[in-house]
Amino acid sequence: MNSAEIITIGDELLIGQTVDTNSAWMGMQLSMRGIQVNRIVSISDRREEIIAALDESLRRVPLVLITGGLGPTSDDITKETLAEYFGTKLVMSQEVLDEVTNRITRRNLEMNENNRRQAMVPESCRVLANHAGTAPAMLFEKEGRIIVSMPGVPSEMKHIMHEHVLPMISSMTGGHTIIHRNIMTFGTFEAKLAERLEGFEKELPAMVKLAYLPSHGVIKLRLTGSGDDPELVRRTEEEQVRKLYSIIPDVIYGEDEITLEEIVGKLLLDNNQTVSTAESCTGGKIASMITSVPGSSAWYRGSVVAYDNNIKAGVLGIDPGIISRYGAVSEETVRAMAERMRSIAETDYAVAVTGIAGPTGGTPEKPVGTVWIAVASAAGVVAEKHLFADDRQINIFRSATNALNLLRKHIISR
Amino acid sequence: MNSAEIITIGDELLIGQTVDTNSAWMGMQLSMRGIQVNRIVSISDRREEIIAALDESLRRVPLVLITGGLGPTSDDITKETLAEYFGTKLVMSQEVLDEVTNRITRRNLEMNENNRRQAMVPESCRVLANHAGTAPAMLFEKEGRIIVSMPGVPSEMKHIMHEHVLPMISSMTGGHTIIHRNIMTFGTFEAKLAERLEGFEKELPAMVKLAYLPSHGVIKLRLTGSGDDPELVRRTEEEQVRKLYSIIPDVIYGEDEITLEEIVGKLLLDNNQTVSTAESCTGGKIASMITSVPGSSAWYRGSVVAYDNNIKAGVLGIDPGIISRYGAVSEETVRAMAERMRSIAETDYAVAVTGIAGPTGGTPEKPVGTVWIAVASAAGVVAEKHLFADDRQINIFRSATNALNLLRKHIISR
Repeated sequence: MNSAEIITIGDELLIGQTVDTNSAWMGMQLSMRGIQVNRIVSISDRREEIIAALDESLRRVPLVLITGGLGPTSDDITKETLAEYFGTKLVMSQEVLDEVTNRITRRNLEMNENNRRQAMVPESCRVLANHAGTAPAMLFEKEGRIIVSMPGVPSEMKHIMHEHVLPMISSMTGGHTIIHRNIMTFGTFEAKLAERLEGFEKELPAMVKLAYLPSHGVIKLRLTGSGDDPELVRRTEEEQVRKLYSIIPDVIYGEDEITLEEIVGKLLLDNNQTVSTAESCTGGKIASMITSVPGSSAWYRGSVVAYDNNIKAGVLGIDPGIISRYGAVSEETVRAMAERMRSIAETDYAVAVTGIAGPTGGTPEKPVGTVWIAVASAAGVVAEKHLFADDRQINIFRSATNALNLLRKHIISR
Repeated sequence: MNSAEIITIGDELLIGQTVDTNSAWMGMQLSMRGIQVNRIVSISDRREEIIAALDESLRRVPLVLITGGLGPTSDDITKETLAEYFGTKLVMSQEVLDEVTNRITRRNLEMNENNRRQAMVPESCRVLANHAGTAPAMLFEKEGRIIVSMPGVPSEMKHIMHEHVLPMISSMTGGHTIIHRNIMTFGTFEAKLAERLEGFEKELPAMVKLAYLPSHGVIKLRLTGSGDDPELVRRTEEEQVRKLYSIIPDVIYGEDEITLEEIVGKLLLDNNQTVSTAESCTGGKIASMITSVPGSSAWYRGSVVAYDNNIKAGVLGIDPGIISRYGAVSEETVRAMAERMRSIAETDYAVAVTGIAGPTGGTPEKPVGTVWIAVASAAGVVAEKHLFADDRQINIFRSATNALNLLRKHIISR
């Protein structure tokens, strides 16, 4: 079992009402386990389409994962079609009925005919219990090939993949170990990083592969180690991770899927310290990113979003003379913002940002994308100037992530 | 020409590194023009896969749209494979070469072999100029069927669809008029809305269809009118839009793709008024949504993100007695936040939010998801209590959108 195909069923996918995010998630899970996804096919809720697509996939690969078309309404026909395809009939599953009844009554709702219909399953399938919803998943075997049908709701699909499908795949690919390590970097470009890692890549042992996964300024380096000896894979990969830390220590900020706001929170929590923010052009974006981290109230105090110069003066208490002398977008102003915020919020650190997000407001001396960032602490203030892009949303996002990164570097340098 | 298929090419789609958002966008554009998408197929950058998928699609439909595999690197083989498939050879296109040279030199870069390779196109194709990137798109005809190959970069694909493919489709479906009207609603549920619109739906004239497109609390009602007489389609649809306004005036907030933050900005700009925000549990989300609107500095002054009670007292200037007596999440506190913010920011309106986003911090009296929202104006303060969900991100987002909606209602009521 080394290849698979994915079939996603639903008219909503073809008319563009829903973006198919399930396939990418399943593709990543399968490829991380050494199974190559050959094709992803999206089709409508029509009997002939389902049968044709399944026929074609089963001619090519030994594993077919299907999502969608298992809901309680009349346009969901996947279950009936699969029963027909595998020459079996629908029977009531007491186990599924109990599960559905339990879910429905827990929400103080009445069981109806549609709910009962969900407990009917093809007689020859193995039911894969769905504790995340009311539609059961089903596993069929045919001439040594495996077909799994799951609901299209992403949370339910993921539940069934984690509970049933991925453990089955791991036991079938038996013995072969695959270990992933994700190294998170910020503050560089993919081409630049590839240049610095050219020698590293050339010397990589055969059992370890490297992938660059860039996303909004963060570049995730994914090392995939595989082999038959788990301990050897683990040790070999660990050596490569250590090597990465020695080659690019300046841009690595963490591991796994950690974000800049999460690592900042972790560092502050470890040091029992706090931070506040004073934002102009980011307009609350930094505060919003920080407060999306659960538990951030333990280390984050708040923000003054000084979109207007009167707020910079009136609420933050910045000397209006600084703004009129140097301008709202200047080193002097951003330093004053950080110092004043730290003082009024009584925090260990304060981060400040002021800049021109665009599309208007640029001048020849200070074009759109000009941004000043500062971090204040007991040790004083550091400030940085950046020139980002023409695009407002990109400027806001890159200002916010660079501010968080400057704060991170400031905390670890102390 | 009434059906099509989409083929997306790229290993990154199959291993889940990239979510295929192109297909949904193309599917929507095609279905809006009366063309049914039969299938979406994602395949790898392999010659045999491309040929097999194209063969299959051309057996089923008269129009095939292909994206991906047109980049300058060696793993991009779509162009070579298409030349082989259509029995033609690659020739240098002076037109494309000029376009590429222009783009490269404008960025002060040197033309290299890879750039020149992009100007090689299959001799029998019609080149569709790409003003959004360096890879040209190509149109092939074979036995009355049309095949279009476009770059996989979403902005380039959309550019080529708008410039070349969609106009071609409109001219081919000739004479048939399709007009869309999008009515934006907020503050209700899909099931509830469907109930209120049951009679409306039953009485819809045959030439107008209604679709519900829910997304994060906003439900877009899309009316699609189609017919041979443009004026009749337009008029019939306009009558239905007016009917919608009379049935559900309380939940419609605008048309087309307008957001709540955009409509609030438009109303304030029209009235020459301003707003500020004081946020606790939303942690800067409202400020961030507002300042993502270009030009918002004309009507938005700023925010105090009072994540900590000391900021509520020290910066906002709320009487600490109110917080200790009624709690940070209370009607009294949210009213004081709105009033104080309006006063210190000197704005016409101020919006305040305080609540328990979770996952921790809930009590039996004030469970996670409890949120107070207030709007202050010269006329006084209105406040609302909500009980949202268990999920932190959902609570933040729903608090922010409901606050913007309360502000909107408050502005139009005056």
